Amino acid sequence: MHHLSLPHTDQNTQRVLTGDRATGQLHLGHFVGSLAQRVKLQHQYKQTILVADLQGLTDNGHNPNKVSSNILNVVADYLAVGIDPLKTTICLQSKIPALSELTMYYANLVSVARLQRNPTVKNEIANKAFGASIPAGFLTYPISQAADITAFNATLIPVGDDQLPMIEQTNEIVRKINAIAQEKILQECKPLLSKVARLPSTDGQSKMSKSMGNAILLDSTQKTISKAVKSMYTDPNHISIDMPGRIEGNVVFTYLDAFHSDEKFVANLKAQYQAGGLGDGKTKKILEDRLQDLIKPIREARANFIDDKSQLIAILKEGSERSQDEANQVLNNVKRGFGLNLF
Amino acid sequence: MHHLSLPHTDQNTQRVLTGDRATGQLHLGHFVGSLAQRVKLQHQYKQTILVADLQGLTDNGHNPNKVSSNILNVVADYLAVGIDPLKTTICLQSKIPALSELTMYYANLVSVARLQRNPTVKNEIANKAFGASIPAGFLTYPISQAADITAFNATLIPVGDDQLPMIEQTNEIVRKINAIAQEKILQECKPLLSKVARLPSTDGQSKMSKSMGNAILLDSTQKTISKAVKSMYTDPNHISIDMPGRIEGNVVFTYLDAFHSDEKFVANLKAQYQAGGLGDGKTKKILEDRLQDLIKPIREARANFIDDKSQLIAILKEGSERSQDEANQVLNNVKRGFGLNLF
Repeated sequence: MHHLSLPHTDQNTQRVLTGDRATGQLHLGHFVGSLAQRVKLQHQYKQTILVADLQGLTDNGHNPNKVSSNILNVVADYLAVGIDPLKTTICLQSKIPALSELTMYYANLVSVARLQRNPTVKNEIANKAFGASIPAGFLTYPISQAADITAFNATLIPVGDDQLPMIEQTNEIVRKINAIAQEKILQECKPLLSKVARLPSTDGQSKMSKSMGNAILLDSTQKTISKAVKSMYTDPNHISIDMPGRIEGNVVFTYLDAFHSDEKFVANLKAQYQAGGLGDGKTKKILEDRLQDLIKPIREARANFIDDKSQLIAILKEGSERSQDEANQVLNNVKRGFGLNLF
Repeated sequence: MHHLSLPHTDQNTQRVLTGDRATGQLHLGHFVGSLAQRVKLQHQYKQTILVADLQGLTDNGHNPNKVSSNILNVVADYLAVGIDPLKTTICLQSKIPALSELTMYYANLVSVARLQRNPTVKNEIANKAFGASIPAGFLTYPISQAADITAFNATLIPVGDDQLPMIEQTNEIVRKINAIAQEKILQECKPLLSKVARLPSTDGQSKMSKSMGNAILLDSTQKTISKAVKSMYTDPNHISIDMPGRIEGNVVFTYLDAFHSDEKFVANLKAQYQAGGLGDGKTKKILEDRLQDLIKPIREARANFIDDKSQLIAILKEGSERSQDEANQVLNNVKRGFGLNLF
């Protein structure tokens, strides 16, 4: 009923699926890249968030603790930023057998060569230095993602543009299944492209990563935040306050763009910095204040959530059970499409 | 109780898994290569037979009817040759979600390069002329077979020697899982090598195949059997009765070796044939009589079984449900080994 009172858009029919590999706590990069958007999306769409433990294992098969120890961390992060389990279904990939079953059916419709051409997979393989020993599960994870997306009838997938090949792969599978079934069993999906560029690490060198120590986690203490901002990469040639400084590649300004709500104020700061006369100490202080304000309530909420593991498990269990029913329906349709509905 | 009265061998602990891709009716090649053995094995071991519809799809993804239309055919073939559903569990691969789930876990422990080196897969890829478009599901089917074997705690796998690499691959996965779990969760398996060589097609040219019309199906009519034997490949140079004939490559004698119970009688026939004075008409008559005797009761039993589809479904359903419980236990152990047992 609530939905019907909203202005007429596609929010009634569109389904959103997002998720995270459960391989570490979430950080500010996740916050600005996806979490903040999900908090908004849950009011507009039926949204499912998948805690992707199986996908996390595709490159951690021999180190599963990295995945298993982070499942509840990720759920606590979700709740702490304001994802509401009454509005968003939060579920655990490994608790939904239909996702694995759908993967088996789809894997017969995607060639090995097609997977090897996938630009996202190609990039990730290069970054991970697997050498000749790419796990089969890693090469085939775009098929598993297609299973995830279609199992929830998701039509809108929030992604960065580096993930567009995944959407393409999913829609190829959707079309093949519908052609085999001679029936529109599955729906194609569309990307919901994030407007925000990927947040750089605090050292400006790479992607944020907890293990690299260049990420600000969502449960960072006041002290950690302060230290991280103070050590942030700025303009190495900006050695005195009166000199003009560079904005490009200056992590402090990238973060101000991402986290400061007053665009005009940030634009003024940039102009001053470029003209000369604004020191890094001052810009860092402004950023630190903003991040302390942002993270304090998240950290405090998260501490309460992580203290009550049985509540986190209950939320994940309830969401997974609801998702099972939904995914099983899609699986049954796909099996019927293949003629495998004897009993 | 029955088991305990048998002489002390390993029959109480060994578990047998066999199965067939559900891609066609079974023929005399299956009978001599595996079915006859299974009828015996069911009295000695706890035996599970998997109707492998998912594996059948790995090279029939775009033609699933070839699989779905043959599931009950295969079950009827089993019952007709004397496989007893009270002694042997007959189950359907697609009805046991744990098999797909285990495949997902195992796929993270096997490299793409390892799969590409598998001699059986290599051979089959060459035979099937997939070109560059090997389906991912086909390349990875040894992983799915390892899931099948381990899900039923099978320790004894009846195979031809061309399937030995599959056993090796399974045991590699078993050792990796046990190492990760630091616990003996899964058991290694051993091949039970068939003594019988692969039965040639009636034209002596290749493997038997229903579509090639060179296989004698288990429901062949009297007329079809007669025609098939009469057209069998013998010795093309044996153009008159009094000439010596060749035994090697002579399909009639290969079939007599496989199906005639009196070895001495067959040895005498061979000697006569090689010496000259024995015509192909006579050897073919002897073989035809034997095959008519063999197939008649199978054909008649099969006609009754295939007439009662609901009984076939009930048998498959009951076996699949029992198998689900068993496979779920193994899956839970593997998940616990990976630390994925939150709830």
